[in-house]
Amino acid sequence: MTITLPIGLSVTARVPASSANLGPGFDTLGLALGLYDEIVVTTTDSGLQIRVEGEGAADVPWGPSHLVVRAIERGLEAAGVWASGLDVLCRNAIPHSRGLGSSASAAVGGLAAANGLARALDAEIGLTEEQLVQLSSEFEGHPDNASASVLGGAVVSWSCPPAVEGDEPIYSAAKLDVHPDIRAVALVPEERSSTAHTRGLLPELVPHQDASFNASRSALAVVALTARPDLLMAATEDRLHQAQRAPALPLTTRWIGILRQAGIAATVSGAGPTVLALSTEPFPVELAEAARADGLRVLELDIADGVEVVTTTV
Amino acid sequence: MTITLPIGLSVTARVPASSANLGPGFDTLGLALGLYDEIVVTTTDSGLQIRVEGEGAADVPWGPSHLVVRAIERGLEAAGVWASGLDVLCRNAIPHSRGLGSSASAAVGGLAAANGLARALDAEIGLTEEQLVQLSSEFEGHPDNASASVLGGAVVSWSCPPAVEGDEPIYSAAKLDVHPDIRAVALVPEERSSTAHTRGLLPELVPHQDASFNASRSALAVVALTARPDLLMAATEDRLHQAQRAPALPLTTRWIGILRQAGIAATVSGAGPTVLALSTEPFPVELAEAARADGLRVLELDIADGVEVVTTTV
Repeated sequence: MTITLPIGLSVTARVPASSANLGPGFDTLGLALGLYDEIVVTTTDSGLQIRVEGEGAADVPWGPSHLVVRAIERGLEAAGVWASGLDVLCRNAIPHSRGLGSSASAAVGGLAAANGLARALDAEIGLTEEQLVQLSSEFEGHPDNASASVLGGAVVSWSCPPAVEGDEPIYSAAKLDVHPDIRAVALVPEERSSTAHTRGLLPELVPHQDASFNASRSALAVVALTARPDLLMAATEDRLHQAQRAPALPLTTRWIGILRQAGIAATVSGAGPTVLALSTEPFPVELAEAARADGLRVLELDIADGVEVVTTTV
Repeated sequence: MTITLPIGLSVTARVPASSANLGPGFDTLGLALGLYDEIVVTTTDSGLQIRVEGEGAADVPWGPSHLVVRAIERGLEAAGVWASGLDVLCRNAIPHSRGLGSSASAAVGGLAAANGLARALDAEIGLTEEQLVQLSSEFEGHPDNASASVLGGAVVSWSCPPAVEGDEPIYSAAKLDVHPDIRAVALVPEERSSTAHTRGLLPELVPHQDASFNASRSALAVVALTARPDLLMAATEDRLHQAQRAPALPLTTRWIGILRQAGIAATVSGAGPTVLALSTEPFPVELAEAARADGLRVLELDIADGVEVVTTTV
């Protein structure tokens, strides 16, 4: 049974950016970062209004195919509610196509907003965190960014084959409490990167010893992120994707080299081009200045909690 | 300056067995198991006496090449002490060539005993845990078993290239506190296995997606072992070594299948043939009986602390 939502119900979802891979944890490790998109959804009597402010306002495709709208629709359907019309306002702060999980954040934000509308009507209905991880991961096929934005902190995400062939894989994630001394800095280039393009640079086969190297370092990354930040340098080493994509990301690769040389655990954020730097020390002022001079935005970011939804009116 | 130890100094090192890999953590994850070799070392006026009781008494090669003796000598040298003669008694309980880390335990036990002799003389000298991990790992080239026997609990181990070419790699390990609900059972076949042989069954190249699969599951294994034993089944899945070695380990492979079908997280222990089963539930009596009927020893084992040394006389 689908319940139709009353007109004038409004919720705001605040969803963090995320960084995936963190070096060795290809397609599995994620970290929620304190840079937020806000999605304000209000039920109306008919039609669909979408406004976009901030990042991507000029270039996000409009209309019902908009990822946020598709996520809201999917969330309403999953929660068993429906709206006769929607007004959607996206206040975007997460840069697009830079490796900060903006697409995953859009999917998570839309689903969480829909869930908030359902719960505003009836606190007994709606989606669990597990369902939000599943549904948001289905939009992109990888749970690393999506589950970080759902759960906050750091995540280990994984997928299992569906019980029934042809169904979606089962996406799961376990949250890690990030050590309170760890600080994140994102160096964000102006140019964009296509995940599809950089993914094409990965080889089909890799040496067994490189595979076991990453198995070791990604396990170590969990230890470093939660309990042993002194091990972050060793724990962010990778042999599965960063060197392979380096030719497509010269500025990113150069800055990872500069930072690691300075003892700062730097990795490609997702598929790039953003550089993620993790450290227990303040980011050196002279490196921040040099990065800006190289055309990079320098964002000092908190480790974020997961998506939050506030009911604006009931 | 090398100090010569007085005659009649005696220490006992009690060193746990270990299981390596734990599924996805090939050559990196290790777990200390409550099955102990004891090494009693006494300084004498000259010569070398070695006695072996228990496992391997009939077949461990005698003489100065004995691994325990080499480890004692290496430990004395590293601690800056020497003995004019040694009496060594090995009380072995860890089965040999079964994937329970008996060689690593011998190396750790010998080094720790030597360290105990040095410290009995002067508590200010001797080796740190980091040095014990380094020196014991050098004996085999892999720190997974050795560091588990040194540190106890579970470990994530890794190695880095030496600063000077030709030196030994730098071996390191981080200890994990294993969730108190986790129980370990080892199913130990009668036949032995050669790590050198089974290692030869591994392919040089593996699919990138299998490499990222193991990077994900080994990270998850750290979460499961420490905080989320409910995730042990997913966290012990592997694509890098178990299926590849299965033809050489038919009994082991069959029992891993039987246990996993029953919801028990079973893996090949090290290079086999022992099966390691991890669970929060008691091991089913009917499965233990069936395993014994199949010629397997069924050992319910505590998760162990690291090597301990007791000074018997000063």
